[in-house]
Amino acid sequence: MADDRKIDSESLKSLLDAGDADKAGKTLLEEHPADIARFLGELGDEHLKSLFYVLDPKLASEVVAELNDEARDVILEDMESKRVGEIVDHMASDDAADLLGALSDEDARKVLDHLPADDSHQVKSLLAFEDDTAGGLMQMEIASVRSDASVQSVIDMLRANREDTEDIHNIFVVDANEQLTGVLPIRRLVLEPLETIISDIMDEDIISVHVDEDQEEVAKIFKKYDLLSLPVIDDFDRVVGRVTVDDIVDVMEEEASEDFFKMAGAGSDDILPKSILKSAKIRLPWLFASCLGGLVALKIIGAFEDTLGQMVVLVSFIPVILGMGGNIGTQSTTIVVRGLATGALEVGSLWRVVFKEIRIGVILGIVYGLFLGAAAYLIYPENAFLSLVVGLAMWTSMVLAAAVGTLMPIVLFRSGVDPAVATGPFVTTSVDIMGILILFGFATFFLL
Amino acid sequence: MADDRKIDSESLKSLLDAGDADKAGKTLLEEHPADIARFLGELGDEHLKSLFYVLDPKLASEVVAELNDEARDVILEDMESKRVGEIVDHMASDDAADLLGALSDEDARKVLDHLPADDSHQVKSLLAFEDDTAGGLMQMEIASVRSDASVQSVIDMLRANREDTEDIHNIFVVDANEQLTGVLPIRRLVLEPLETIISDIMDEDIISVHVDEDQEEVAKIFKKYDLLSLPVIDDFDRVVGRVTVDDIVDVMEEEASEDFFKMAGAGSDDILPKSILKSAKIRLPWLFASCLGGLVALKIIGAFEDTLGQMVVLVSFIPVILGMGGNIGTQSTTIVVRGLATGALEVGSLWRVVFKEIRIGVILGIVYGLFLGAAAYLIYPENAFLSLVVGLAMWTSMVLAAAVGTLMPIVLFRSGVDPAVATGPFVTTSVDIMGILILFGFATFFLL
Repeated sequence: MADDRKIDSESLKSLLDAGDADKAGKTLLEEHPADIARFLGELGDEHLKSLFYVLDPKLASEVVAELNDEARDVILEDMESKRVGEIVDHMASDDAADLLGALSDEDARKVLDHLPADDSHQVKSLLAFEDDTAGGLMQMEIASVRSDASVQSVIDMLRANREDTEDIHNIFVVDANEQLTGVLPIRRLVLEPLETIISDIMDEDIISVHVDEDQEEVAKIFKKYDLLSLPVIDDFDRVVGRVTVDDIVDVMEEEASEDFFKMAGAGSDDILPKSILKSAKIRLPWLFASCLGGLVALKIIGAFEDTLGQMVVLVSFIPVILGMGGNIGTQSTTIVVRGLATGALEVGSLWRVVFKEIRIGVILGIVYGLFLGAAAYLIYPENAFLSLVVGLAMWTSMVLAAAVGTLMPIVLFRSGVDPAVATGPFVTTSVDIMGILILFGFATFFLL
Repeated sequence: MADDRKIDSESLKSLLDAGDADKAGKTLLEEHPADIARFLGELGDEHLKSLFYVLDPKLASEVVAELNDEARDVILEDMESKRVGEIVDHMASDDAADLLGALSDEDARKVLDHLPADDSHQVKSLLAFEDDTAGGLMQMEIASVRSDASVQSVIDMLRANREDTEDIHNIFVVDANEQLTGVLPIRRLVLEPLETIISDIMDEDIISVHVDEDQEEVAKIFKKYDLLSLPVIDDFDRVVGRVTVDDIVDVMEEEASEDFFKMAGAGSDDILPKSILKSAKIRLPWLFASCLGGLVALKIIGAFEDTLGQMVVLVSFIPVILGMGGNIGTQSTTIVVRGLATGALEVGSLWRVVFKEIRIGVILGIVYGLFLGAAAYLIYPENAFLSLVVGLAMWTSMVLAAAVGTLMPIVLFRSGVDPAVATGPFVTTSVDIMGILILFGFATFFLL
């Protein structure tokens, strides 16, 4: 059970306080690297460094791959490049590239000098890919065979390369030009007779991605076809690596978080571990856009001085009309942003969604327009015009808010911009300005 | 490449229009079930039914497992229970249970009568679990062996049960009481000599979940330990099934979407395929909560009639102060809701986050309070008090909004309620009410 695996943090911390990092390190040997990484992430910098120092290179390589970025940077800060090299040597190529990517170019070069030529070459070529592409996600440890090989010869090959094929599920079948012609799930090696020729039992219906494919697209392919791993090919259709589903699980969570934070205008990656000043700095500019919008609304209200002078009661209705517009607009935006992200909303049907959201806005606008009109009449029975004005303003602003909330992410998407980029603050601010114009516009028209 | 796999929808649709479903069905045989499902989802009800009818039961079983709920219901609507039985017979137990769960109890019973007794029993026991638990996710097709078996005997067992072990990656090792004692990745069968005893090569460090564990927790375990499949155990530690990572990928997307929609008050599951009236009905009650809040703000403004009469210019500042409060509050809420969902925010550190967000609110509040105060002074230089009032009101309402935005999801979480439940509308509405109170409160205090 997951709960049985918890590390006894308290007793470990007292060991560290007593300066006995060696003993603390030994009790960790039995634990899962993911649990160790979590525990290390909770320690202060000094304890973190001294405890990590006593882990042997293999365990250290597994732990560091699971550490959060902040703790990883603390550990790497003043570690000798020889020791980093020993750790990296135990890592899969993708994790190695991620680690070296976090170092300065000079430090990375020094570490590469400590690696065997083969590994160093692999890691260097991985470092050349963008982080958020198939190339940036893939590892280069693959098992590839020719289609005329027998089951027995493939098994022999796997046994000979035991270490590098430790977590392989699919064997790639390639032709003389290294081009992918088939995929063989490893379990078929168990099920089929030893003399069987690979081409007779391989899957020829291959799904692959190009090294430059965006990680969101790669995730969609995994999801659609229920894959465990996916071959990555270069411009010449040669297999250069594979992406595995455990990395895709992380990508999906990362992309969803990014959309959450972007929509709220709170940065694009995990803001939680950041310092207060850094967090404030990330959130400041998005709020500025919204503040400028508020100043526009301020000037507009100023322009309606005459109307306002004759009808101060209108003021009471500003929050409810702006608030309802903001909420229905945010609903529409959320539905579009999430639909585009998951692929549930297809590019061909974007206009249909705009019209659908407008019609929903019309229905909800009628309900709440009538409701607010009735409420206004109950509160100010002497003023039937007021009831008409606020009811109509509520309806109009809800319809327009639904339209703007749907259109804004679609326009961003069409312009090649991530539709989640702070659509939240932008939508609510535009809706505020529209709401003010509508409310005072109707009031001026009907009451003056 | 994913793009090469697209079905030629146009020519298929013309075949269907010409009434030649047979020929259309034949051209689909080569395609991936996920692609067929996607294509079927785009068809009208009649075409959908006639095309699905010509698929053979095995392909039909693979396609229906990938179909969206709406299309699946259309197909099942008037299909004979014998045909449904044939299709279900080809499905893995988890997909079978999902399909039968979509039928009425009576229809499900009829279909179960057409299944072999074994399968019928499996599916019935799966139907008893809640959809969003490990039991609801798992499939019962597992391969389990005793620890004293040899590699050869396990291979023989797998070959004998070829069909049921088609997509198995891990073999579960159990003792005489069916209790889980180890896990054996299938690739070890290839790497180790045939006479090796399983207990010598199995992993004893087992991660498992209880059948009743919530699917979100199950997803967190997969993510943390990079798993492909996870044994599910009952109250007596007996293995009853396994959850696979492809289902977890779907769970993660579903849970993230749920949080997006809940935060915006737009229902809890995918709202896109729903009709306009249904969508409006789902979104209506959340907007009502926000509308009631708006009416409270309305009454509060009414209570400040005197202040307002003496200082109409205050009105212009309502949108910007309420808007900025709403935005910073939404930022805080988003960070907490997402942090709780991903596990990045631990229960023990909730209070730390509240204080951190308040301090961020203080910083951002100072920046924008000064900014708004300065703007007010530029616009109304004759009224220095106004500048003080709006600057102070901006600062106070941003600090309180950050506090409320952080506290609201935490309080919901502590009360055992999903923190994402419409925190969006609730936070913005509470912030609106607070903002009005603060602005008019300060104005009354300083100006009267």
